[in-house]
Amino acid sequence: MSELMKSWVESANSPETPFPLNNLPYGVFSTSDTAPRCGVAIGDQILDVSALEANGLLSFGGSLSGSSWNAFMALGQDSWARLRQELTTLLEDGAPNRSVVEAHLVPQSHATLHMPFEVIEYTDFYAGRHHATNVGTMFRGAENALPPNWLHIPIGYNGRASSVVVSGTEITRPCGQLKGPDDDAPRFGPSQRFDIELEMGAIIGQPSSGPISVDTAFANIFGYVLLNDWSARDIQAWEYQPLGPFQAKATATTISPWIVTAAALEPFRASTPAREKELLPYLRDTGPMLYDINLEVGLTPDGGRETIVARTNYKEMYYSAAQQLAHHTSCGCPMRVGDLLGSGTISGPEKDNRGSFLEISWGGKEPITLETGEQRSFIEDGDILSLNGAAMGDGYRIGFGPCDGRILPTA
Amino acid sequence: MSELMKSWVESANSPETPFPLNNLPYGVFSTSDTAPRCGVAIGDQILDVSALEANGLLSFGGSLSGSSWNAFMALGQDSWARLRQELTTLLEDGAPNRSVVEAHLVPQSHATLHMPFEVIEYTDFYAGRHHATNVGTMFRGAENALPPNWLHIPIGYNGRASSVVVSGTEITRPCGQLKGPDDDAPRFGPSQRFDIELEMGAIIGQPSSGPISVDTAFANIFGYVLLNDWSARDIQAWEYQPLGPFQAKATATTISPWIVTAAALEPFRASTPAREKELLPYLRDTGPMLYDINLEVGLTPDGGRETIVARTNYKEMYYSAAQQLAHHTSCGCPMRVGDLLGSGTISGPEKDNRGSFLEISWGGKEPITLETGEQRSFIEDGDILSLNGAAMGDGYRIGFGPCDGRILPTA
Repeated sequence: MSELMKSWVESANSPETPFPLNNLPYGVFSTSDTAPRCGVAIGDQILDVSALEANGLLSFGGSLSGSSWNAFMALGQDSWARLRQELTTLLEDGAPNRSVVEAHLVPQSHATLHMPFEVIEYTDFYAGRHHATNVGTMFRGAENALPPNWLHIPIGYNGRASSVVVSGTEITRPCGQLKGPDDDAPRFGPSQRFDIELEMGAIIGQPSSGPISVDTAFANIFGYVLLNDWSARDIQAWEYQPLGPFQAKATATTISPWIVTAAALEPFRASTPAREKELLPYLRDTGPMLYDINLEVGLTPDGGRETIVARTNYKEMYYSAAQQLAHHTSCGCPMRVGDLLGSGTISGPEKDNRGSFLEISWGGKEPITLETGEQRSFIEDGDILSLNGAAMGDGYRIGFGPCDGRILPTA
Repeated sequence: MSELMKSWVESANSPETPFPLNNLPYGVFSTSDTAPRCGVAIGDQILDVSALEANGLLSFGGSLSGSSWNAFMALGQDSWARLRQELTTLLEDGAPNRSVVEAHLVPQSHATLHMPFEVIEYTDFYAGRHHATNVGTMFRGAENALPPNWLHIPIGYNGRASSVVVSGTEITRPCGQLKGPDDDAPRFGPSQRFDIELEMGAIIGQPSSGPISVDTAFANIFGYVLLNDWSARDIQAWEYQPLGPFQAKATATTISPWIVTAAALEPFRASTPAREKELLPYLRDTGPMLYDINLEVGLTPDGGRETIVARTNYKEMYYSAAQQLAHHTSCGCPMRVGDLLGSGTISGPEKDNRGSFLEISWGGKEPITLETGEQRSFIEDGDILSLNGAAMGDGYRIGFGPCDGRILPTA
């Protein structure tokens, strides 16, 4: 485990900050004076890299001057490494250019964060074994919990890129067709089983036009965000056969505002679990491609205090994002810079490791009690749902920033 | 039924041309001298509308000067109507500006056609009752052919926009995980059951940010293309439970090169069939929103001649594109200019009306014999698959241009 890299930005040296010099995550921010622009989080500050490119301290062909990181990602791996190196040199303890750089620090408390990249297409997977087993047990019984293909294929479906929003965006409870098992016909109304899914999102930073290997896939992933795949379980139950979830998943997907790069996560690489069935060659692990990232879910009821309802870790995944991406390209599907892959819900083996209320309340049969004394099976109007995550280094942490959404009643 | 509108472009007055003055479909073309640009088909010519905007004969804020129709679509319905009116005035018999306009006609034989619009997101539906009944009968028996939700919901799933290509693009036979019912484990190899789906594509021309009515949905559809949703049936059979088709549908989707506007199709409006179950209010028909468009599928084996393997009509759909779009927005899903909705496979009631080889060969059990004497259950390498379509007026036709793809062997 590597150690804290010290910065002249004092707040970046706290063991509590999510944004030490080791992290350097990429986001898009605005202030009352400036339009949305590219920035890098350092301690409690944001470094305005668009200004640094404008004054020549950074030079990446103008790619830092837009309002998303897509143009920079498109430059490729050499540029990704060079920017990280140059930012480290500018921000490390004793850096010579401190006064020039300091003029372009903006306190995070003065900034509004925006979508850090333009989501071109969004794919969501179902690659957490504990989650798939829990859901399968509820719906098909313990003997048939995992579908027959599950140990062979990182099962995925295409989601809706237009519905991906940044942390803090309020989420309106969706309506849809609902039909209970004893109802004669469906009715149209607000979802009564609105839920979260605790996931990580992998951001594709390089295009591909045909099948790619797991190693190439790993190299093409620019970075990661926390991802909450809001899910209307009752809409899903009625609509999903035979072609999969559609309107149940298209209201919103919330991501955290900072892209934590694969480079920053490098010290935290972790292996997928032992394989029960050998994978086909195009999917085989070639090294540890998951990450050891602690994850948790908090629920804050309207006017109340937060209860942590789940704690788990990204290394619980059965398939890595690199394996998912390799599979995604296996039929020749073209990938583009800015594509987003959701990991699938990340649950752990224990009851308090479950990354969705469907699992936490076991389909609504076992409501949990919050610290306020209230009970929850699914999300209520006014609730704030928060994902948090951090990779834990020696005296530092690599954080993602918040991934929050408050639920508004159906309009 | 309206009559042929006469143009001074003589070839546009033939009863055989797909592109009379009544049509005026929008495409993107290049020549050996010019980069891809917006054009309008008229008879055997293309009118270079980017040049007409450059010289001031048309004025749409520069939206005709790009290499896609997205910017023009974004201008909205009033601009859609104004351009159609102005083009009609410029091209009709006796138009005063003929010599100025004539200088900007390019023979179609000299042009290469490109994607007419940038596909932002692609959704595919399953809204043809004969197709769903045929497929369901094969997989679940005649009593359970239609899933319980089918008569209530226009079932859809998100497809992959990056894989949509224009007619003429060669299609490489995909590989994927294949597992026969008696195999112990899947293997990875070329699809042996590669197929077409005869569909229409509806192009969204106006954005929406929440649920919209069927009437608003109808008004937001800019136009239509022919659409072939290439499908690997064997990949699909193994992957699709529980989250729907994924790699089976992501190799390619081919569209015809000309956007036929809703305005051009107005005289051909047709009603959906009688409802077996009453639809929920948000989906109810408010008027005829399908179109009477004859459709056919041709197969040309390598070096051979074409056999027409299916004939059907767009009015066979159970749900209109407007109903699909209204449903798509029902959970609050945002729609954007350039979103593409596939109708679902359009089969008719009879054996020779089937819009996929899965149906034509009844799952491979009843191969058909081509005019060359060869047999086909699914597509062979070297085959050219062609969709054709036309709405038939009184002495004229509204055509779409070709929707063709030739199959290359797995690389």
